[in-house]
Amino acid sequence: MSSTVSSTTPTSAQAEGRPSSSEIPGYTYGEREIATAPITLDELELIQGAMLFGEEDIKALRMSRDVLADQTDDVLDVWYGFVGSTPQLVQYFGNTETREPDGAYLAAVRKRFGQWILDTAEANYDQDWLNYQFEVGRRHHSVGKNRTDGAKSVPIIHFRYLSAIHFPVTATLRPFLSKKGHSPEDVEKMLDAWRKSVLLTSILWSYPYVGEGEF
Amino acid sequence: MSSTVSSTTPTSAQAEGRPSSSEIPGYTYGEREIATAPITLDELELIQGAMLFGEEDIKALRMSRDVLADQTDDVLDVWYGFVGSTPQLVQYFGNTETREPDGAYLAAVRKRFGQWILDTAEANYDQDWLNYQFEVGRRHHSVGKNRTDGAKSVPIIHFRYLSAIHFPVTATLRPFLSKKGHSPEDVEKMLDAWRKSVLLTSILWSYPYVGEGEF
Repeated sequence: MSSTVSSTTPTSAQAEGRPSSSEIPGYTYGEREIATAPITLDELELIQGAMLFGEEDIKALRMSRDVLADQTDDVLDVWYGFVGSTPQLVQYFGNTETREPDGAYLAAVRKRFGQWILDTAEANYDQDWLNYQFEVGRRHHSVGKNRTDGAKSVPIIHFRYLSAIHFPVTATLRPFLSKKGHSPEDVEKMLDAWRKSVLLTSILWSYPYVGEGEF
Repeated sequence: MSSTVSSTTPTSAQAEGRPSSSEIPGYTYGEREIATAPITLDELELIQGAMLFGEEDIKALRMSRDVLADQTDDVLDVWYGFVGSTPQLVQYFGNTETREPDGAYLAAVRKRFGQWILDTAEANYDQDWLNYQFEVGRRHHSVGKNRTDGAKSVPIIHFRYLSAIHFPVTATLRPFLSKKGHSPEDVEKMLDAWRKSVLLTSILWSYPYVGEGEF
């Protein structure tokens, strides 16, 4: 789907300096067509409370933004290397006709994944952020997978793997977070904040998988 | 529900030195009445592969068993203290009539939770372990909550919190893992292995929440 956002009326994305979906296809964070999240910001805060997520984590995430900003491509190389070498993960990028990984699909997701690193480190847990998490969730589930990129791939990423990659995604950040001279304590704080934030997003992304009233 | 396992025929639980459900009510790990898991051991291994879980983690978990064995009550004090002081979590132990936390229910779960620490550290990922994980999952979901302990409590633990406590459960282990003179590297290895193992169980426990064919 191509974006139809007018270039004359700035969206919240443009107002806050994020790229628009005309710069990163499918990156509709803060744009008008995104549905309102099925949970409120108060409910979001309760989930954060249950994972000991607080102001210190927001500071630590924002500290990590400067650390990671010029390393997103290297981080993505590690993550894509891992996914590419793990058959039970790369299958979700498989083209259903050729049965090979779909390069265009992988590349389109990679652009948004790089921006996701910056957005996660930005740690702005507002309504636009919340709405977009549920949109990203739908894109993993059969209600929305493949549509954003017009991919001909398998219809769903199974729940088990959507959750499982929490560990590799966060654990592999340590060397990148350590690269700019921060103390081991600060590195650990940034890593813990990332652990919580990725856990939070993986919970929100799971929404379409979970039975009605059970989320 | 009381167990009806005969004392003359040893179950796999007794054969492996675990307590039986006559010692810890509701602890039916390895006992006959547990349904067979809906995924295979091969599928379990694929999930473990997607979270970089390997032989080193099994060693690290078993190292943690000796470290934690005489500290399980202290660990539970920390976890129960956190749950007890977090309204959005303690509600799941609430008695639906008095609206107060149900002490007997909390105490019954606590006994199994203590044993869960030892079992997690034991790291025996066999069919009995796998079957029991799905049983524990059912006990969080409306298909099985409250039955084991005859509790009069809310019908389900919502998915968001079942997943969210991954962080506090693992992060609070660090001081306990550090208490027996292990090197910082060994403590970190044990903690990472715990992170993966708890992530794995929280995935398996989520099974009844997830739509058919989407797990």
